Formats: sequence, structure tokens, C-alpha cells
Amino acid sequence: MYNFEYQNPVKIIFGKGEISKVGMNIPEGSKILLTYGGGSIFSNGVYNQVKASIKDFEVLEFGGIEPNPHYETLMKAVEVVKKENITFLLAVGGGSVIDGTKFIAAAALFKKGDPWQILAKNALVEDAIPIGSVLTLPATGSEMNSGSVVTRIETTEKLAFMSPKVMPMFSILDPEVIFSLPDKQVANGIVDAFVHVIEQYLTFPVNSPIQDRFAESILTTLIEEGPKVLVNRNDYDAAANLMWSATLALNGLIGVGVPQDWATHMIGHELTAYHGIDHARTLAIVLPGVMHIKREQKKDKILQLGERVWGITKGTTDERIDLTIQKTVEFFESVGIPTRLPDYGVTTETIDTICNRFRKRGYKVGEKANIGPVEMRLILEDRL
Amino acid sequence: MYNFEYQNPVKIIFGKGEISKVGMNIPEGSKILLTYGGGSIFSNGVYNQVKASIKDFEVLEFGGIEPNPHYETLMKAVEVVKKENITFLLAVGGGSVIDGTKFIAAAALFKKGDPWQILAKNALVEDAIPIGSVLTLPATGSEMNSGSVVTRIETTEKLAFMSPKVMPMFSILDPEVIFSLPDKQVANGIVDAFVHVIEQYLTFPVNSPIQDRFAESILTTLIEEGPKVLVNRNDYDAAANLMWSATLALNGLIGVGVPQDWATHMIGHELTAYHGIDHARTLAIVLPGVMHIKREQKKDKILQLGERVWGITKGTTDERIDLTIQKTVEFFESVGIPTRLPDYGVTTETIDTICNRFRKRGYKVGEKANIGPVEMRLILEDRL
Repeated sequence: MYNFEYQNPVKIIFGKGEISKVGMNIPEGSKILLTYGGGSIFSNGVYNQVKASIKDFEVLEFGGIEPNPHYETLMKAVEVVKKENITFLLAVGGGSVIDGTKFIAAAALFKKGDPWQILAKNALVEDAIPIGSVLTLPATGSEMNSGSVVTRIETTEKLAFMSPKVMPMFSILDPEVIFSLPDKQVANGIVDAFVHVIEQYLTFPVNSPIQDRFAESILTTLIEEGPKVLVNRNDYDAAANLMWSATLALNGLIGVGVPQDWATHMIGHELTAYHGIDHARTLAIVLPGVMHIKREQKKDKILQLGERVWGITKGTTDERIDLTIQKTVEFFESVGIPTRLPDYGVTTETIDTICNRFRKRGYKVGEKANIGPVEMRLILEDRL
Repeated sequence: MYNFEYQNPVKIIFGKGEISKVGMNIPEGSKILLTYGGGSIFSNGVYNQVKASIKDFEVLEFGGIEPNPHYETLMKAVEVVKKENITFLLAVGGGSVIDGTKFIAAAALFKKGDPWQILAKNALVEDAIPIGSVLTLPATGSEMNSGSVVTRIETTEKLAFMSPKVMPMFSILDPEVIFSLPDKQVANGIVDAFVHVIEQYLTFPVNSPIQDRFAESILTTLIEEGPKVLVNRNDYDAAANLMWSATLALNGLIGVGVPQDWATHMIGHELTAYHGIDHARTLAIVLPGVMHIKREQKKDKILQLGERVWGITKGTTDERIDLTIQKTVEFFESVGIPTRLPDYGVTTETIDTICNRFRKRGYKVGEKANIGPVEMRLILEDRL
């Protein structure tokens, strides 16, 4: 196990009916900006529950934060925060709304020039407006971590930043929000959480049995409980197990003291930036390619994944690796997510564009930082 | 899964050489009281590492905190804190030193009369002196939780309190401290952590697959890695895995949203109070009795424990339960911890005393609050 530091002060308030506690968790006298996305919170009743709970506060609203939240949109919210002297940001939505709100929180108090530097140059976030969140979609883990991913339309760039300053003070997770989600969003959430675990697990062994088993626990639970939610949207227990799994998949815990990959995310972000493909779907496309092209480097952990999660105990090493990749692909497809580039109309032209972009950036990704333009081409061509 | 709230802001600094970071994690200008136990920190080098790191602070020392820390001793430290205007408590030791320091932190700022009320009457802890810890013994989990157990010699009472105010700001976990521990302390740590998991797991099913699998992950790792540490005290990886397991066993995470038992602890505390038996050893004595007497109520989870942790898949329900209890006993005995009352010279007289005490207290324990004096007698007689 590697040395590590871990701290996660986010207060989780979990369960049915808990949205009514949002008001009591916001500092008294706060001037709130309620941030949200496309408006599903109006049809599923979450908006009304939140508003009832915060009726004693002064509240402004900022809606229209897109999936893969746009820098351009978020900067408009930053203007509102500054002009209205907002002191608390309440994100009500999925990962995109929470990610976007984290950027708003940091950008509003950024004093060293253009806030774009936070994303483009990893400029230090010295302070941020406090955030609370009400999660409406289990998927990204943003409700209990320090990360945020923002897309700049003008330059087709999708970039991330991390800062402990933007971790929510609290996040409310009521699994009942899942009851009204469309299949596509549930499936995206399952796959997103699954790949978050894989990025922190499927690397090389460093003698970390606890981290490995926690990761396998989450994967197994997603495989068992995810499909139950798709079949019966009102299965509260399955919804609760999916929601808690997705949070634990990316709250930092399973990633302490172990190598991490994130190549699938880095490549997937480009597919979203150029083609607008849902984040989770880009992961389902790219991951099998990464597993195949890096099969030698990841051999021990792919075999462990195969045995402990998919029950694969027979065959040669290569056969077991192939079967583990196949089982993973079949799982993604079984929840309704296609895993090949042509399924999304993406051609070799995009592969060229992505590889050129990484050539210009000049860095490599993956747990051994050995995935550059050449390896990316192999990975993406494997997914044609 | 039940509704729950979870928040754990303790910063964990984990790994070899990390004790040197203690100073940089203490607020500038603090006046520190360094608390410790019997002096092992002088022979294993931890004291020197800590002192070197905090050389720029004003530091007083308070040693001699006992295993099962004594209220009487801790109140002397409270006097020092008040008289010297201490602003930071640095606990360097195992669970007893950290538990004791938590009580000092709360008692020093307690304004509503006798601080004994914190333990005896669950008086609210409104404020506490900030604490940091350097852990020297993996076992209790106190380094990453809000709990503290204190013994009052005068009245032979061992009582607990919990408060988020006494959670350490940071805890440094350097597995190398294990290299110099005697077998007995390592074995106690393994069993203590094991039973902490069991108390949050071996109850009745509430459809919480993630919590169950995380619990089983820790148990399996303790079973695998614990004995390695006993065989080779310089096995860094095994020491690291044991240490992280013991922390995760009682940092609140595996206990969210599920029923909890704690009967073994409540009964075990009495054995320590009357006979001075090491805490972990009292758990090893009592747990098999609880499993046996509550075998019907705990049936589903005992079978799950047997299958997933001990690999027991054959036999009638009763046979599988018996074998699961037997395997658990054998594990405790294999690390050198006897599991029957006569092994510690305890007779039926003590059983009478304990049952009478609980009769007077008038409450019952266990996940269904159905273990009172009658059931305790059965449990303890099972261990004769």
C-alpha cells in the first residue's frame, strides 16, 4: 500500500423523506442561490420539497445548467453570485449541476485573474462559497468529493479541477428521486459508477486487500442492484443500494494508497467534447479498449476482477482476460448502453482529432503514464 | 437500508515516515499537552519523532494514561489543561490514550457541573479542546471516530460517551509502530477490530449489500493479514493492512443504515471493570456466547458470515451456525487469545454480579434490545 492522506468532511443525509432537512443544514442568515438543470426537479416534486424546507431564507434561482456543464453558462451564475452577494450555493440536481456549482463557488471568489485558469492551469482555489447539494441522480459521486468537470463550448474543451474548498458541506441523498428517472439516466449512472471503481482498481497490485475488496464490493452490488432498478423503478431498496454505491464509488475511500488509472475518463471526455455523447456512454466505449490494449500491464488485476466479480476461474490467462472484458461489455450492453464507436456515429476522423490533440498537449495518461497518442489510437481503433 | 446521517471529517495521514508531519498539522501558536501512556513511545522511537516535529511549539506532557483509562487520572490532566491554558491535545498512543484524551478535551471545557455527567448521564458535549493523534497500536478505531470509553476505579464502572466535538482533527497512522509491539497487543488489536465489525454486521438483514460486503472485506482481511503480522513483525504490508482494517472497522462507515448490536461490548466492559481483563479478550470470551444464545435471531447473518467469510456452504442450518461459531473461536484462539471465562479465573460469582448490575440499570442491550440479565446469564454460562 502507498502512503496516503484522506479527509472527507461531507455530511451525508441519506434516505426517504430526508430532503425536508435541507433548510436546517444551511447556515442561518444565508442568502442562497439555488442552482439546477433542465427542470426535472419541477416534475418530480424535488423543487417543491426543497423550497418548503428553505422558506425562511432569501433565495434566488439559477436554472439551465446543462449536462456537461458549460463554462459559458456557469460564468453567468458567477455574475449573479457577485452582484447579489450570495453566501450559499444549493445545488439541486445530478453530477453536472453539482460540478457546475463547484466551479461557480470557486470562480466567484477567485482573485487572481480569469477563473478559466482554475480549469486550464490548475490555479489554486484559495476560497469558495459554501455548497450544499440535493442529489437527484446517482452516478458521478460529485456529492461527496472535491472534483468538478466543466466544458468550454467555445474551444470544445472538457477539463477538470479538484479542491477540498468545493466539497459540499452536506449532501442529501433520497433514493426516491430515482423513481421518476428515465431508463437512460439510470443506466448511465450504473455505468458511470462502475467505471469510477474500475479506474481506481484495475491497475496493478500493491498489496491493498481492503481497497481491492471494497472496490469489488461496489462492483458486485452495482451488477446485482442496478438491473433491479431498471426493471422496477419503485424498488426502494435497490434504488438505495444503487445510490449509496455510486457515492462510495468516488468519494476517495477506495482510491487511497493505490495506483489510479483515469485513462478511460481522459479519452472519454474528448468524445463528449466533440460529439456530445453522454459521459457514462463514452466510458462504456473506451474502457474495453483500455483493458484490451493494456492487458499485459493490468493482467493481475483483470484476472482478479474476472475471478472475484465475474466468477471466471478457468482457462488460460488470455482466455480469462478476454472473458472478463466480454463480461464487462455484456453488462454495459445489458443495461442498454452500446459500447462501440459506430453505435454513436463516430468514425476514424475523430480518432485522428483526439490523438492530435493529445500529441499537442504532450502528456500521457494511465496508472503508468504510458498512454499517449499512439496507444490512444490503438484503444479507439479497438472500439470501431 | 435504514435512513442515516454520516460525517467523518478526521484527516488520516497514513504510511511509513508520516509521523514527521504531526507538527505541520497542528494550528500555529498552539500550546500543546502531549498525552501518552506507559512509556512504550520512548523505547520505540515515536516520542523522539513527535518531539522533533513539534519543536517550534510550547509543549507540556502528561503521561501515565492507563489501559482502560481511569477517570481519576484523566481529571488530573484536566487540571493541567485548565491551569496551563492548553489549546491543543496531542494523543500519542493506542486507543486508551486517545479515548482518555477525548475525555480530557471534553471535560476541560464542560461548563455544566461535574464532568462525570458526560459519561454517567450522557450530558451534551458542547465544546472540546482540539485533538490530534499519533496512533501506536491498531485496534480500537478511536483515531477516526467520536467515541471514548473511560473507567472509574472508585465505582468499578466502565462507561462510554460519543461526540463529534472530540473527533481528532487528524490522526497519523504509521504502520511501522507495529514492528515493536508484543504479540499480545497485536492479537488484542486483531480481535478488537474483528468484533467491532461483527457488532455492526451480525444482526439481521435489512438489504444493505454494500455495508455487508464492506464488513466481510474487513473480516477477511483481518483473518488473512493479522496472523502474518504475528509471524513476522517486520512485514510492512501486513502491518499496513492490519492498521487500515482496524481503523475502517470502527469509523462509522460500515455501520450506516444497518442495525447494530454492541451486546458483546456491554457485557465485556463489565469483565474488564471487575477483573481487569484486556478489552479485546473480554470480546473474545463473550461473542461466541452471544452468537450461540441469539442464534435464532441472528440466523441469516450468521449463515452469511459462515458462507462468505469462513467458506461454510454445507450442512443443516444448525450445523452451519455451530461451525461458524467454532471457526470464530478457533480464529481467536489461533492468535493466542483464550475464549472461556475459566481461562481468566472468572467464576459464576462474577456472572451473578454482572447480571445484578444490569438488573439495577434496568435497560437491555443488543440490536433488538432484548438482552437483559436473564439472557446475559445464559451467554456468560455458555462461556464457562
